[in-house]
Amino acid sequence: MPRYAFRIEYHGAPFNGWQRQIGQPSVQQAIEEALAKINPEEPRIAAAGRTDSGVHATGQTAHADLARRWQPFRLMEALNHHLRPLPVAITACAEVDEDFHARFSARERRYTFRLVARRAPLVHEAGLVWQVRNPLDLAAMQEGAAHLIGRHDFTSFRASLCQAKSPVKSIDEITITEQPVTGGAEFRFHLRARSFLHNQVRSIVGTLERVGAGAWAPAQVAEALAARDRSACGPVSPPHGLYLTGVTYPDDPFA
Amino acid sequence: MPRYAFRIEYHGAPFNGWQRQIGQPSVQQAIEEALAKINPEEPRIAAAGRTDSGVHATGQTAHADLARRWQPFRLMEALNHHLRPLPVAITACAEVDEDFHARFSARERRYTFRLVARRAPLVHEAGLVWQVRNPLDLAAMQEGAAHLIGRHDFTSFRASLCQAKSPVKSIDEITITEQPVTGGAEFRFHLRARSFLHNQVRSIVGTLERVGAGAWAPAQVAEALAARDRSACGPVSPPHGLYLTGVTYPDDPFA
Repeated sequence: MPRYAFRIEYHGAPFNGWQRQIGQPSVQQAIEEALAKINPEEPRIAAAGRTDSGVHATGQTAHADLARRWQPFRLMEALNHHLRPLPVAITACAEVDEDFHARFSARERRYTFRLVARRAPLVHEAGLVWQVRNPLDLAAMQEGAAHLIGRHDFTSFRASLCQAKSPVKSIDEITITEQPVTGGAEFRFHLRARSFLHNQVRSIVGTLERVGAGAWAPAQVAEALAARDRSACGPVSPPHGLYLTGVTYPDDPFA
Repeated sequence: MPRYAFRIEYHGAPFNGWQRQIGQPSVQQAIEEALAKINPEEPRIAAAGRTDSGVHATGQTAHADLARRWQPFRLMEALNHHLRPLPVAITACAEVDEDFHARFSARERRYTFRLVARRAPLVHEAGLVWQVRNPLDLAAMQEGAAHLIGRHDFTSFRASLCQAKSPVKSIDEITITEQPVTGGAEFRFHLRARSFLHNQVRSIVGTLERVGAGAWAPAQVAEALAARDRSACGPVSPPHGLYLTGVTYPDDPFA
């Protein structure tokens, strides 16, 4: 059976996350049901990142095995047709080798978190960014983030329900940028790692926001990490500022 | 009575435009009702641009006279509180002289139109940009737009219901930029003029889109303008890609 890789965008709001669960809407179910419209049996689809409820994606990657061979552009068009009107879109599609696995072949995941600091409510980007009312200090957040780069035990920064066998992960990048918006500023956190723990990105951003607000000193991020204790973490940021933006494989399936 | 100027953002979708109309939701009514919560009588508010149904704003400017003097930041906060949960936000507020008039003192209005060309549906920016499925040629659109710069009779590019006394207007700028988006490109049209006719921006963008698609030659834009005939215009673009981004006054009230 030919295997296809898909690059997928979705709005997190209407879904209880990527992963299929009985009685809850999921992105996985939406795509599997669209695939079932064009395939004799409903295929299973495996994704690089099992994003949480409310988390967005612009570069999720997944694969599925289909009964017959498709011209990739036609397959993408057919799926987008059957996905309507859900906020899920296939933006690239390619036939891949049978040893390609969207989850297990992935070498790197990239996430971006959008955080806007301003007093007035957001009207166009409601649901697309996390808004706080207090100003934030970029340099302090960058100083706090520096403590998290590299290989560490991230017990303090993972959900108590996290199922990963080990809390040790390597974070390769946390870049924070600032750009002005009317009446405030938008901060974008770009994180890159081979893989992340459950709630790791949102725990890191929620903690760094406290640093930016002046409630935490930057050095307290290092203390929280060293504590290896979930209660040492800052508040977990809400999901609607988080985007899975890309996944890297040894060979880019969409190149 | 002290006079206040307001810079206003709104999402166009829930409103039948800026201007108050019986039995239709309008941005003007929303703000006047918020003002009535903090002022003994409901004040009238006058805006620089009477945007159409569905059109967005990031820099609308308006003014109103209030019964008592306010600290501008507190006035902004009070109005944003009473505007909730409507997608309308006051992003700046200032006391101005009694001879300031948001509409009649305005020297320049600026609009931006967002147009995305790609096959896959948009999931995060649905309702915030106009999407077309065909690719667009930036250079051809720029060549077509050049014919519209300067002082012309824009009869071909205004709504048949337009109430302006004269169809002669001066367009000072039409800049078109292109940036890549996943699976396509976003084009932003920046237009600047002392004032615009009813539907003028949307008529221009809709016509230039036809040029970008290759359906019109760039020189046909000049022919359409010279025809001084509404039927010579291309299709009017939908409202949800259009933003009133700013208004210029002899003295910036928010400086």
